[in-house]
Amino acid sequence: MEYAPYGWRAKIGLIYIASAYAMEVEFNQMAPEGVTTHTSRVALCERPEQFTISDLSTLQEDVLEATKLLAQAPLNTIAFGCTSGSFVNGVKYDKEFINQMETIANMPCTTTANSVVEALKSLNIKKVAIATPYEKDVNDLAYQYFTDCDLQITNMTGLGIMNDYEISNLDIHSIYQMAIDVNTDDAEAVFISCTGLSAANLIKVLEEDLQKPVITSNQATFWHTLRLSNVKANLKNFGQLFDR
Amino acid sequence: MEYAPYGWRAKIGLIYIASAYAMEVEFNQMAPEGVTTHTSRVALCERPEQFTISDLSTLQEDVLEATKLLAQAPLNTIAFGCTSGSFVNGVKYDKEFINQMETIANMPCTTTANSVVEALKSLNIKKVAIATPYEKDVNDLAYQYFTDCDLQITNMTGLGIMNDYEISNLDIHSIYQMAIDVNTDDAEAVFISCTGLSAANLIKVLEEDLQKPVITSNQATFWHTLRLSNVKANLKNFGQLFDR
Amino acid sequence: MEYAPYGWRAKIGLIYIASAYAMEVEFNQMAPEGVTTHTSRVALCERPEQFTISDLSTLQEDVLEATKLLAQAPLNTIAFGCTSGSFVNGVKYDKEFINQMETIANMPCTTTANSVVEALKSLNIKKVAIATPYEKDVNDLAYQYFTDCDLQITNMTGLGIMNDYEISNLDIHSIYQMAIDVNTDDAEAVFISCTGLSAANLIKVLEEDLQKPVITSNQATFWHTLRLSNVKANLKNFGQLFDR
Amino acid sequence: MEYAPYGWRAKIGLIYIASAYAMEVEFNQMAPEGVTTHTSRVALCERPEQFTISDLSTLQEDVLEATKLLAQAPLNTIAFGCTSGSFVNGVKYDKEFINQMETIANMPCTTTANSVVEALKSLNIKKVAIATPYEKDVNDLAYQYFTDCDLQITNMTGLGIMNDYEISNLDIHSIYQMAIDVNTDDAEAVFISCTGLSAANLIKVLEEDLQKPVITSNQATFWHTLRLSNVKANLKNFGQLFDR
Amino acid sequence: MEYAPYGWRAKIGLIYIASAYAMEVEFNQMAPEGVTTHTSRVALCERPEQFTISDLSTLQEDVLEATKLLAQAPLNTIAFGCTSGSFVNGVKYDKEFINQMETIANMPCTTTANSVVEALKSLNIKKVAIATPYEKDVNDLAYQYFTDCDLQITNMTGLGIMNDYEISNLDIHSIYQMAIDVNTDDAEAVFISCTGLSAANLIKVLEEDLQKPVITSNQATFWHTLRLSNVKANLKNFGQLFDR
Amino acid sequence: MEYAPYGWRAKIGLIYIASAYAMEVEFNQMAPEGVTTHTSRVALCERPEQFTISDLSTLQEDVLEATKLLAQAPLNTIAFGCTSGSFVNGVKYDKEFINQMETIANMPCTTTANSVVEALKSLNIKKVAIATPYEKDVNDLAYQYFTDCDLQITNMTGLGIMNDYEISNLDIHSIYQMAIDVNTDDAEAVFISCTGLSAANLIKVLEEDLQKPVITSNQATFWHTLRLSNVKANLKNFGQLFDR
Amino acid sequence: MEYAPYGWRAKIGLIYIASAYAMEVEFNQMAPEGVTTHTSRVALCERPEQFTISDLSTLQEDVLEATKLLAQAPLNTIAFGCTSGSFVNGVKYDKEFINQMETIANMPCTTTANSVVEALKSLNIKKVAIATPYEKDVNDLAYQYFTDCDLQITNMTGLGIMNDYEISNLDIHSIYQMAIDVNTDDAEAVFISCTGLSAANLIKVLEEDLQKPVITSNQATFWHTLRLSNVKANLKNFGQLFDR
Amino acid sequence: MEYAPYGWRAKIGLIYIASAYAMEVEFNQMAPEGVTTHTSRVALCERPEQFTISDLSTLQEDVLEATKLLAQAPLNTIAFGCTSGSFVNGVKYDKEFINQMETIANMPCTTTANSVVEALKSLNIKKVAIATPYEKDVNDLAYQYFTDCDLQITNMTGLGIMNDYEISNLDIHSIYQMAIDVNTDDAEAVFISCTGLSAANLIKVLEEDLQKPVITSNQATFWHTLRLSNVKANLKNFGQLFDR
Repeated sequence: MEYAPYGWRAKIGLIYIASAYAMEVEFNQMAPEGVTTHTSRVALCERPEQFTISDLSTLQEDVLEATKLLAQAPLNTIAFGCTSGSFVNGVKYDKEFINQMETIANMPCTTTANSVVEALKSLNIKKVAIATPYEKDVNDLAYQYFTDCDLQITNMTGLGIMNDYEISNLDIHSIYQMAIDVNTDDAEAVFISCTGLSAANLIKVLEEDLQKPVITSNQATFWHTLRLSNVKANLKNFGQLFDR
Repeated sequence: MEYAPYGWRAKIGLIYIASAYAMEVEFNQMAPEGVTTHTSRVALCERPEQFTISDLSTLQEDVLEATKLLAQAPLNTIAFGCTSGSFVNGVKYDKEFINQMETIANMPCTTTANSVVEALKSLNIKKVAIATPYEKDVNDLAYQYFTDCDLQITNMTGLGIMNDYEISNLDIHSIYQMAIDVNTDDAEAVFISCTGLSAANLIKVLEEDLQKPVITSNQATFWHTLRLSNVKANLKNFGQLFDR
Repeated sequence: MEYAPYGWRAKIGLIYIASAYAMEVEFNQMAPEGVTTHTSRVALCERPEQFTISDLSTLQEDVLEATKLLAQAPLNTIAFGCTSGSFVNGVKYDKEFINQMETIANMPCTTTANSVVEALKSLNIKKVAIATPYEKDVNDLAYQYFTDCDLQITNMTGLGIMNDYEISNLDIHSIYQMAIDVNTDDAEAVFISCTGLSAANLIKVLEEDLQKPVITSNQATFWHTLRLSNVKANLKNFGQLFDR
Repeated sequence: MEYAPYGWRAKIGLIYIASAYAMEVEFNQMAPEGVTTHTSRVALCERPEQFTISDLSTLQEDVLEATKLLAQAPLNTIAFGCTSGSFVNGVKYDKEFINQMETIANMPCTTTANSVVEALKSLNIKKVAIATPYEKDVNDLAYQYFTDCDLQITNMTGLGIMNDYEISNLDIHSIYQMAIDVNTDDAEAVFISCTGLSAANLIKVLEEDLQKPVITSNQATFWHTLRLSNVKANLKNFGQLFDR
Repeated sequence: MEYAPYGWRAKIGLIYIASAYAMEVEFNQMAPEGVTTHTSRVALCERPEQFTISDLSTLQEDVLEATKLLAQAPLNTIAFGCTSGSFVNGVKYDKEFINQMETIANMPCTTTANSVVEALKSLNIKKVAIATPYEKDVNDLAYQYFTDCDLQITNMTGLGIMNDYEISNLDIHSIYQMAIDVNTDDAEAVFISCTGLSAANLIKVLEEDLQKPVITSNQATFWHTLRLSNVKANLKNFGQLFDR
Repeated sequence: MEYAPYGWRAKIGLIYIASAYAMEVEFNQMAPEGVTTHTSRVALCERPEQFTISDLSTLQEDVLEATKLLAQAPLNTIAFGCTSGSFVNGVKYDKEFINQMETIANMPCTTTANSVVEALKSLNIKKVAIATPYEKDVNDLAYQYFTDCDLQITNMTGLGIMNDYEISNLDIHSIYQMAIDVNTDDAEAVFISCTGLSAANLIKVLEEDLQKPVITSNQATFWHTLRLSNVKANLKNFGQLFDR
Repeated sequence: MEYAPYGWRAKIGLIYIASAYAMEVEFNQMAPEGVTTHTSRVALCERPEQFTISDLSTLQEDVLEATKLLAQAPLNTIAFGCTSGSFVNGVKYDKEFINQMETIANMPCTTTANSVVEALKSLNIKKVAIATPYEKDVNDLAYQYFTDCDLQITNMTGLGIMNDYEISNLDIHSIYQMAIDVNTDDAEAVFISCTGLSAANLIKVLEEDLQKPVITSNQATFWHTLRLSNVKANLKNFGQLFDR
Repeated sequence: MEYAPYGWRAKIGLIYIASAYAMEVEFNQMAPEGVTTHTSRVALCERPEQFTISDLSTLQEDVLEATKLLAQAPLNTIAFGCTSGSFVNGVKYDKEFINQMETIANMPCTTTANSVVEALKSLNIKKVAIATPYEKDVNDLAYQYFTDCDLQITNMTGLGIMNDYEISNLDIHSIYQMAIDVNTDDAEAVFISCTGLSAANLIKVLEEDLQKPVITSNQATFWHTLRLSNVKANLKNFGQLFDR
């Protein structure tokens, strides 16, 4: 039984895509003692069965409104959880957007793409192989985002899916295989993109089989919110990143 | 490690008050295997330090919008989690409101007050003692709500708090004591009201010391969403209600 | 560490379809202490992506050869694991076929369809709802098989899949849903057909949510081989059947 | 309960001797998470009570047929599990035979003798003591096989058993003793030969008492299939080999 | 880790003999969740190596002073832990003394002898066998105390020890034997007297071997303070008394 | 079940403030096997709701009387647990007072402030940040005490509370936050002062988040009594101090 | 760690055959808390590879000497562990012999055959099936012994072994099979004879598969010594006998 | 449940004093997997309440007879367990006596005193502090024994007890204290003498508090029998000796 005040060490705010469901589940699975997650949602588009780059690039207004809503709770940090949503508007836009969130919330904020770059930096990674569920147009923008952050991409694959439900449905076998397949010998890490994927529980096995760090969108975002909240917990089951 | 599809048995949608944080934490603590919770938020008012009956009675529009948002995810049931929000508009209004939510979401929906009444009925309770953190005006409306549902209230106490943060901060000792104090010999159950209270983990001990069923807002709401999702899981640590 | 002679209580022989893989995994998961499983395979057809009723009805010769092979090991019982393989040739043929296997193996033998009927009888079930992954033609033959065994079918559904790999790939969420959906109030039990399905671990949850016995092809076959081997183990996690 | 897709990390195919039963049991005991084993069988001879070198040297045709059968399942690697079956035809024949298997199966394949040599190499062993249950003629061929692989044999003992059932029946005390007895100070490792022996669970204790790596046929074969499937799992209870 | 407010369910006050040490250790061992013990001390006499009936009968003034001290803490109940201290002044005096404590402390109070009588009554015991470490004079007064409470004593033994350190030193074997030896067929319960004895952990085994309830001074006192604090916890390891 | 003689390794005596309750609870939580704690009390003042520096500076006579009382039990070490009680009379007085206790008790004695300084020394700490619940006047005397012990204080904060009950009521979230807030980069350790605080269970998490040793009054006092009793137990969950 | 006085509840003396080793191992495995076993030995004959009925019938003098030796330790009960040793001299002799042991040891004594009869009586068994490792001559005397005790033998089998080492070597599979094979429908219990057999760990599984009480020589002897020592422990893993 | 052949790794023979009981209990507690102990007894004297040096020096004939008896079982090593029995006749006699035992038993043998010296040597100890329960005459002979083995004794204490029952009764607190008291700064290890003491479970705590290796008679004897049986098991709970 848990009798301590909930979130006594840190309370994390999460703004997530309405049609998806993996991210808050994984935040709860990864939570160290004394840390809780609190979620609000924004709609990616009218028909999540077929989202577009345009949908991804126009989420910001709703996210800022959600930031204001979440900031009513006594939180430590707020994250916007949508990897491709950051890719499509580029690094510079993303940094400014985080500033806007912080102004509204009066606490540290981050986005998933920003968290991933911070994660790779903290591990001193220069070369990374990237697997995504997206189609090529989104991957090209992801490529640009990482390149602008001085990262070298040794390989990049996409499953060509632009249906948010289908992404959520990808099973553990498919995600495992997509990470094994994208890996190259010269990659210093593998990054599995998309906050809709149920990939966090695979990290430990993938790091054993690939013998290098594995980063996922949800893991990196959660790690970044913890560190922004001054929580240094070293989680055992979710990859080398939490040693940092 | 969890490799099953998240929420393979049921995914529960929760609409919660922006400034509060206990309810989604307790939904996660109570979750049986294969059940996950997915949250979006509405603002109770501008200044949660001092909310009013008027704030409680005008949440509906925002809740229906949040219902539409949440219904984009492949959920089984959606609940609106705010006990006093139902009390202030009365039983009849509450039933109609649930209908509106169901029309929008195209799945079963419920409110906390409605869940509490269903919980008491399923346990064949006629006489109940009620402890709340609220001030007298809200308690009077709660009294009316339960009386209209043919329940007899043997005793009712309130802490007189109308600051949402203060309610969230009530510690385990104070909540335990408020439940012990409100109890009367003729009460067949004790109900601890408010989705902002961290009371779920106290239920087992309270049922041992009071020797009767104990209902809390979050427990009853979660129980109702499970049963509306056809999940009959008999949780061991959260009171006799889950035998039903 | 396991230092006892392997299979000291019973060694079960299993003849399974070459392209499938769930059954021997589930036999191992269900095994009580001292019981082991030993497998050999037969090909369902040349292209498992598209099998036919004709493929199902002509497996017998290969199965008898496999029976001879397996019988070289010091086993207690041999089962042929292919539910629809029994359906297509009917009850009478199935009984005679079991006799042929027993003549060759000089020990008790069974088939999956035969095991399922024995399981339902041991639970005193008269009315059963049946969910299968098959197309209608196979379901019609299954209907005949059970009717000939004096069982009443309250409902029967099929997913229309005749690709063996696709059947193996069905995830826990889809199988759970297919069992919930086929259930009718008057059914005394639900049977989930097909040895290719990964359904054994769902039984406990399904029995909780359906509040009636749930039978799967692999569970019933394993149960029958145990009982034919005089092992009365009462497994805790695989359904009420093992109380029998 | 296991809700992940069976064998999501790797599915191992095993071709085993019909009259024996230890190998698939030990593959299952050693399996890391996400790895499953799938078996088919070939007959060593008509009367396993008395097999001959001639029986051992003529298994290949049946094995290739079993390879074709097993390859229908979506496996990662296939192994032929019969140590002496490789010894009798020599190293060169064994390598060619593996090639034939791989051509049929279109995936990596191996034999037990080949796996043992790979295991010893990965541990940088040059000098090995070898204990077998066989009679001298088979041991002589084993000696030749290892010598041809540039290994030096410091000691070799055999129990003189050519009855497959008797080999399967050897108890833990006898196998422990045979490993202790064959050891020499200058041996860098001890190898216990025969896929019919129940020796895997002894490895940890033997490595403690001998203070050097211990290799068994079933352990080495399973290790090799894992590594050929790109699974780098470091099993804790089955010897130093799995550090490699 | 324990993050709940200490003693959130109940805080028990204990007044104990300065030279002894078993009672607070056993109170802590028996504590259900949320219950803590808080101790202050009184001197039995100048030289605990040889205490007298006179020492036992003149503790009251110090105890009342200790009651006042302890009552400064936010406790639920206070107990004076010295069995023979109650015996020597008789039942009537003991009741009045408890009243005095309650007047000072403004909460329920009890003594060990009073708790033991309450314990026996709650178990509907009429006939009890009593083992003590004391000499005959003290036993005679104990006999009178129980007889005055309408209890029938089937047998009574004493070890003749009036050295407080020696009593504390009695080992588990000696106490077990003294309980086995005092038992008579017609006794409905066995009572082991003295708060200095380390007897609480023996209760479960003694109840198994004697097949009747076993009461010890420390167990009965702790049980009584729990019940006076409205804690109904049913401890599993300390005898049938806690079913009451 | 615990059948060993209680406190066979060491019995610790504790003199504690009557109105407080955290210290003996934490001594019991931290206890390594074979170590027990035995408590007596002194009154801080008549009205613990408002204690003064004068109250703190006049406890000594009562403490010496309590020392005499406790010394009747066969203890190894006695501690007086009241941090500010030492601060107000200064280092020199504190040392002399310990001598007086030792003369009476004929065994090693200590005070909390003395234990804290010993703890910091054993960790080779020169610069420490200090958080207290007290008001400024008490903090100033604490500052003097540590400075006189050659420690440099990098930061010092106080909550301004002089109500003993309020100090006892401080929850885990407030204490965590007060330790995080007082920390400075140049501090080599953080000290959380006051034996009334429930801080021991926070040490492990705080050391993880602050990445430096954390000392609390109760932890340091218990550590010092263990070491004075020649118990070198290395507790795992209560901070780096126990490595010393 | 075990810090209680060894055998504080009871110390059992065992006189065992020098060439055998199973009985003291099983006494230790079955021991409830607080019970220990202490062994001395007698030689069955010069060459245990081939013992005779004459050897069995002339052990008594050595046993009485061993009784005297063992009785020097502070034991509660002494047993002579050799089932056939009692059979060969008959019931009357056995009873007298027990009397002689008790006269020497001044405590309760028993033999294995006597214990088995007491065990069957306590379970109200009239008809029993008996499996032994012995040859027919010994079985005939066993038959007589049980018949003289008013027990009806529904079936009796023997393995014909008169080599004490071979009996000790019988593995779990052989003993399981011999118990399954001897069982008859009308037997109310199965008795597996011989203190040299390693059968105690099989009892639970055998009772599950046979659905009736199973008695072994070592289990019955240990049960009898416990009951003679007034230990009523209800062991969970060694058969229904311990409910008595 | 234990289904492996008892003592499959090693069977240890123990010759022990009839009136004592600690040694076989501790051998069983220390046993690594696959190792069992088998005991026979010799009488120290007629009246163990008062044994003499003469009793100790005339045990040899009985021990050799017991060796012959035990050697009938298929053991690996035999030990004679009586520390002072070796001291009284000196090192040279002890070595010859071991030779006699080995000649009779045809396997490695040892005595306790010999094992202790081997233990100290394996830990490279030159200077040792020795605590015994004996009177001075025996201690003097012990001093001679160790000195003759080139060991330097930094301190030696004895409790002066020559009653075997009293030695067996010494409790954990007294033995702990006697080890703490005998220790000197220059001692590299502490040796607690006597096979009748229940000291094995104290070793781990003593090594923590003394920060040096602790040797007891029973631990050293068991360690030596394991090593003589080629069992290199590294026990975790019984001292640094088992690292050797």
